[in-house]
Amino acid sequence: MLRAFEAARQAGAEIPELVCYEKQTDWGGQWNYSWRTGLDGYGEPVPSSMYRNLWSNGPKEGLEFADYSFDEHFGRPVSSYPPREVLWDYIAGRVEKSDVRKYIRFETAVRWVSYDADTEQFSVTSQTLPTAADSTETFDYVVVASGHFSYPNFPTFAGIETFPGMLTHAHDFRGAEGLKDQDVLVIGSSYSAEDIGSQAYKMGARSVTASYRTQPMGYQWPDGFSERPGIERFDGNTVHFIDGSTKDVDAVIVCTGYLHKYAYLPEDLGLRSPNNVYPDGLYRGVVWNDNPKLFYVGAQDQWFTFNMFDAQAWYVRDLILGRSAMPDRSERDASIAEWRKRFVALADAADEIRFQGDYVQDLVNLTDYPQFDVDGVVEIFLAWKNDKAADIMGYRDYTYTSVMTGTRSIPHHTRWMDELDDSLERYLQTSG
Amino acid sequence: MLRAFEAARQAGAEIPELVCYEKQTDWGGQWNYSWRTGLDGYGEPVPSSMYRNLWSNGPKEGLEFADYSFDEHFGRPVSSYPPREVLWDYIAGRVEKSDVRKYIRFETAVRWVSYDADTEQFSVTSQTLPTAADSTETFDYVVVASGHFSYPNFPTFAGIETFPGMLTHAHDFRGAEGLKDQDVLVIGSSYSAEDIGSQAYKMGARSVTASYRTQPMGYQWPDGFSERPGIERFDGNTVHFIDGSTKDVDAVIVCTGYLHKYAYLPEDLGLRSPNNVYPDGLYRGVVWNDNPKLFYVGAQDQWFTFNMFDAQAWYVRDLILGRSAMPDRSERDASIAEWRKRFVALADAADEIRFQGDYVQDLVNLTDYPQFDVDGVVEIFLAWKNDKAADIMGYRDYTYTSVMTGTRSIPHHTRWMDELDDSLERYLQTSG
Repeated sequence: MLRAFEAARQAGAEIPELVCYEKQTDWGGQWNYSWRTGLDGYGEPVPSSMYRNLWSNGPKEGLEFADYSFDEHFGRPVSSYPPREVLWDYIAGRVEKSDVRKYIRFETAVRWVSYDADTEQFSVTSQTLPTAADSTETFDYVVVASGHFSYPNFPTFAGIETFPGMLTHAHDFRGAEGLKDQDVLVIGSSYSAEDIGSQAYKMGARSVTASYRTQPMGYQWPDGFSERPGIERFDGNTVHFIDGSTKDVDAVIVCTGYLHKYAYLPEDLGLRSPNNVYPDGLYRGVVWNDNPKLFYVGAQDQWFTFNMFDAQAWYVRDLILGRSAMPDRSERDASIAEWRKRFVALADAADEIRFQGDYVQDLVNLTDYPQFDVDGVVEIFLAWKNDKAADIMGYRDYTYTSVMTGTRSIPHHTRWMDELDDSLERYLQTSG
Repeated sequence: MLRAFEAARQAGAEIPELVCYEKQTDWGGQWNYSWRTGLDGYGEPVPSSMYRNLWSNGPKEGLEFADYSFDEHFGRPVSSYPPREVLWDYIAGRVEKSDVRKYIRFETAVRWVSYDADTEQFSVTSQTLPTAADSTETFDYVVVASGHFSYPNFPTFAGIETFPGMLTHAHDFRGAEGLKDQDVLVIGSSYSAEDIGSQAYKMGARSVTASYRTQPMGYQWPDGFSERPGIERFDGNTVHFIDGSTKDVDAVIVCTGYLHKYAYLPEDLGLRSPNNVYPDGLYRGVVWNDNPKLFYVGAQDQWFTFNMFDAQAWYVRDLILGRSAMPDRSERDASIAEWRKRFVALADAADEIRFQGDYVQDLVNLTDYPQFDVDGVVEIFLAWKNDKAADIMGYRDYTYTSVMTGTRSIPHHTRWMDELDDSLERYLQTSG
């Protein structure tokens, strides 16, 4: 969002006063890794759900910024699935270049936002964490960009209260090294379960069992990795599945997703939605329909990520700057209804990817965000899905071609399964 | 607090409208155990720092309510160190009897409190967690009773970010069973370290190492339990202590205390203090000196607990009802200065216990809370300190005599070291 405004400013536009409240000590959001779990050093919920060993689980060619390529950042081709620290370096490099740090109040938590219909302004009450100093300031517009992968959705399970081993939600999972020689249960069948289960396998878990509620992930898992149906109950270390089978496990990682939670927003401004590609109530996926001075960026479930956030930010910026007109309520309603109608008819992940491609293209067309080959990115995602289906433990060794630069990525010097050092320094070595 | 008002109401007094905001689904506060860690099912910080195996670490004769005895609750003598569930049952029985549930809005989080000097009222913005419904209501008085053992004080340590084993603050520690055959490090030298280390030993840890910053706990620990000085750094599983020694450990429990944190309070109403028996800025330990319409209950470090909270609540109630006059600022300043002068001269734990006894007696004298033998309770605490020094792994098998009823407790049917079932049901069995 700051980058969008700064791009306009540097091109000569007048922009409004910007204040970005950021609870963490540095930027990067989800990619700003913390070894902490639960609450941070100030007692605030830790926003990041990253773990040490995390590598991108989609090709970087699917998330590349249209205005800042991987080639520009690294000066040479790199692999398609960088580890966490490498991706953080990329996104940090881009914002450093754009000189937006000056707008950010770090270590400042927003406590409450309210809207005054008479003045048509928002009051934002925030608190600086090191000192507890609070302030209430007024704004014409508010953009919610705090994400929706920070607050765990953690259902209960019969008997879980006395499970004696390691028990954590994916949100608080920080590394798979400790799972060596352990029998590991992951609960869930989406990306967290797939990836944490795979990391556990890579790090030498004795067994990995994944429990699904509706359907198994269905990959060709290696020996020692299996899928089971839902959980009936825990009894000590023993998991009882609904098919009557049992498994003794040492560690349980609950991969049941996240909540849309905005503790600083009143009921009439707060999005409450399942995690999907077109949450209801958001015009063009970003305008809070009930109060179009409030915006959300990144509220969707995501195939496209960084480049979609960009397209959203550019469009929100243009609405705030008046470069794009805010449609009236009936027009917004009609647009939401039309997109929602398409959304509910989506049959599978490939459909969702194409749908999100159309959504991104629609936003790019509305702004001066650099046009890029959105269909080409869709094709990369579809190829990625196939590559995963063919080789779930090896897909990160595959390479793709950037639609931004035409650069074909190079294989990492070491196969993902054999690479135990996830650092940037190691990644940038030219040989393994 | 509710109990104090309800006692007055049932005695015929007129009391003001009472609203108690409670984030959890039931009462009991710290004693309302949750298996959850970090964030709860609504994404709110879990307030309780209890673990399954926790037993009272002080004799129940030190915390007995003057108006609701253990004899009244259980109908017969019980042991002096009940497990968690038993103590919860006792405090719940007492509030059930007093019919105060009607005042409580459960599953409701306070988001922000502000004070309007013109109207001399507080605005309290709260949010109901299941629906996100928010409301802002005004009050003449606010009592902060959310405690100060819920937000971990968690310093960082060199190399901790890649420690591969179990790593948790005492706040998120939920049970010691999983520490069997493990090498365990507890960091800290106060009650959490002492008790979690002891629980780990009881549950069969291969070794327990406690790291102190200033001085060791100094108990006569059993074989396999040792104390080491501060930590220089972690290197993988290896802990390097500042004396140059090292130890490989499987699990680290960080027992470095808690923060006074009140995320819903602005800077000028929020207590910021180390954990001690006389925090600065609180007249008679309860009145926020800068705004005497705001009160804190239980803000002290605690030897006395339930009965001290009671005495505080009775006094706060009487101030609000006008039964006790609020002294002017200079009188409050003088009182705080006098108590603080005594406080800073305290030499050891025995001094602190006597000091807190005097503090409790002072409050009891001001109200109609039932007089009890405060000096007798002080003697119990002093005896307890000696009993722990003599037998750190066996002190919970000792018995004491209630100053409320004269009842001598009976030994639990099973020695603490051998009792692996902490349930109420098991506790109430008459033989082991």
